[in-house]
Amino acid sequence: MAQQGPAFSLAIDAMGGDAAPEAVLDGLELAAERHPDARFLLVGDEALVAGALARRKRAARACSLRHAPDRISGDMKPTAALRIRGSSMRVAIDAVAAGEAAGVVSAGNTGALMALAKIVIKTMPEIDRPALAAIGPSARGDVVLLDLGANVQCDARNLVEFAVMGDAFARAVLGLTNPTIGLLNVGSEELKGDDRVRHAAETLRDSHIGQNFRGFVEGHDITAGTTDVIVTDGFTGNVALKTGEGALKLMRDLLRQVFTSSVPARMGYLLARPALDRLREWMDPRRYNGAILIGLNGVVVKSHGGTDALGFAHAVDVAMDMVTHGFNERIREGLTRLSTSGPRVPAEPR
Amino acid sequence: MAQQGPAFSLAIDAMGGDAAPEAVLDGLELAAERHPDARFLLVGDEALVAGALARRKRAARACSLRHAPDRISGDMKPTAALRIRGSSMRVAIDAVAAGEAAGVVSAGNTGALMALAKIVIKTMPEIDRPALAAIGPSARGDVVLLDLGANVQCDARNLVEFAVMGDAFARAVLGLTNPTIGLLNVGSEELKGDDRVRHAAETLRDSHIGQNFRGFVEGHDITAGTTDVIVTDGFTGNVALKTGEGALKLMRDLLRQVFTSSVPARMGYLLARPALDRLREWMDPRRYNGAILIGLNGVVVKSHGGTDALGFAHAVDVAMDMVTHGFNERIREGLTRLSTSGPRVPAEPR
Repeated sequence: MAQQGPAFSLAIDAMGGDAAPEAVLDGLELAAERHPDARFLLVGDEALVAGALARRKRAARACSLRHAPDRISGDMKPTAALRIRGSSMRVAIDAVAAGEAAGVVSAGNTGALMALAKIVIKTMPEIDRPALAAIGPSARGDVVLLDLGANVQCDARNLVEFAVMGDAFARAVLGLTNPTIGLLNVGSEELKGDDRVRHAAETLRDSHIGQNFRGFVEGHDITAGTTDVIVTDGFTGNVALKTGEGALKLMRDLLRQVFTSSVPARMGYLLARPALDRLREWMDPRRYNGAILIGLNGVVVKSHGGTDALGFAHAVDVAMDMVTHGFNERIREGLTRLSTSGPRVPAEPR
Repeated sequence: MAQQGPAFSLAIDAMGGDAAPEAVLDGLELAAERHPDARFLLVGDEALVAGALARRKRAARACSLRHAPDRISGDMKPTAALRIRGSSMRVAIDAVAAGEAAGVVSAGNTGALMALAKIVIKTMPEIDRPALAAIGPSARGDVVLLDLGANVQCDARNLVEFAVMGDAFARAVLGLTNPTIGLLNVGSEELKGDDRVRHAAETLRDSHIGQNFRGFVEGHDITAGTTDVIVTDGFTGNVALKTGEGALKLMRDLLRQVFTSSVPARMGYLLARPALDRLREWMDPRRYNGAILIGLNGVVVKSHGGTDALGFAHAVDVAMDMVTHGFNERIREGLTRLSTSGPRVPAEPR
């Protein structure tokens, strides 16, 4: 929705991900249908992208193509990626920094995207460190989990900031008016865990989001949906996300074996299929594609590198929600209230 | 198997857990059948236990009853539990410390069991801190995960010791001759994570278990079964275990909804039922009941407080495996080799 602000809703890295640019362009074809007013700045190698873009009618109408000669590979170190000024990822990020686009979506190298975004788009002045967030399925609806690995070591202040950012995220992307927040710990009692989580909990209880803060939650609360937002450090969050995904994958694989193990089991599958298909659709990892680097002066969404058109379109949906609902303004507002209300965040040397 | 050693294979806390002593006694009735040579020292309030024991023929033959007037409740703080000398848990642990029993099984308060065991049975002299370990399901068989919460903060040395203990555990309980070991991290590349995991990895590579050390693994590797043993700190391990359990529970609940959502789905369930039942049996949390506090001068197994007879019998199986296969001797041997082989403190991170 190009208002009086940036000319483009989003800059799109056409060359990121395993099946780029084809999967990206197919994703944009879907996204252009879902967001008819959106304008995309598509960045990539013109020779490789222009023809493919012309073949997608809706995407072609919604996109302006900008040439970028280079490409950041999946195994490139962030320090190396920073030196390549002509990469599609870099040129797309530059467009956000220059105010041409409100946000960027890339399915490329995660480490490179985080490093480039931090250096080029820059962290909000109110924020110590950005965090990586994502949405996952739970028994009671979608749940926001952060940090997922942007910060392997965090102090109490970082955790408090993640809670404020998670709150803004749940409002903007899940559309919740009063998202509840939990802090991940090894038990729900107040005395559990280390000083870091206990300090963070104390600060959050006294803050402007204190009434929605539900204290400590445990690993099983993520899929139980005990709270709408679950806050943790990047090491634990990364492990929790991948462990949960792994457990669901194990179940899917075992169910596939069950339903092909005998003729009656196959028939049983066919009978239960409509309901099983609805379940599969609801749990579809593509529906949860799009990890968001929050705390920057722009919207930055990382699509899974191995996803297809549907997954990429969903990552674009997430970015559009954030752009449309003034996500960064909400974060800023939350942080301002945090610094004017309640006691100070305990200062801890890093 | 009462050899020339302790008179009792295991001391059993009759009063621990939600359904004690009934579930414990039913579990012992099963265990006595599975381990006909085992002798159990059953500890609990005589007035409550004696009659119930007499009604279980096999258990009655395998058990000697010892009176303990008190009981540690589920919500009692460890410091309070330490002061009660006459609790069933304490008297059972005392029997291990006195050399009367080779190990103890309790379904009672986890924090109290850990605190009492550490103080009464004591940590092995070679070990800095004991760890809590458990077995879980994976696509390639059972996998050992530790630490699960005994130590919320760990250094590199603790992680290395956990690896040695996990190696011994996998040999004794899973019967593996060359268990592979992975160190949980946010990525599999050597440079990922913090100093702590990188130092631990370096030490492990140069140690006597270096040839079985597969380096860093990620959350999804737990259920993928990438390695037989997965080592992490107690905070991350606790969250990972509960997140994985939560994800599996979500899937079970959703499948129940699927199979009751329509008449054809119900029929489908009936047709696929034998295969689904096998899957359910294989994934049954009771089959994985029994977390083990390892690194002490005796075998200490914590059964889930809410489990039934089958679950408690499985916790007894785990303890019997450890007693029978000289688990603690294996750990001692491993630690001795660790201190005589490779460097203990890494010189510099790579």
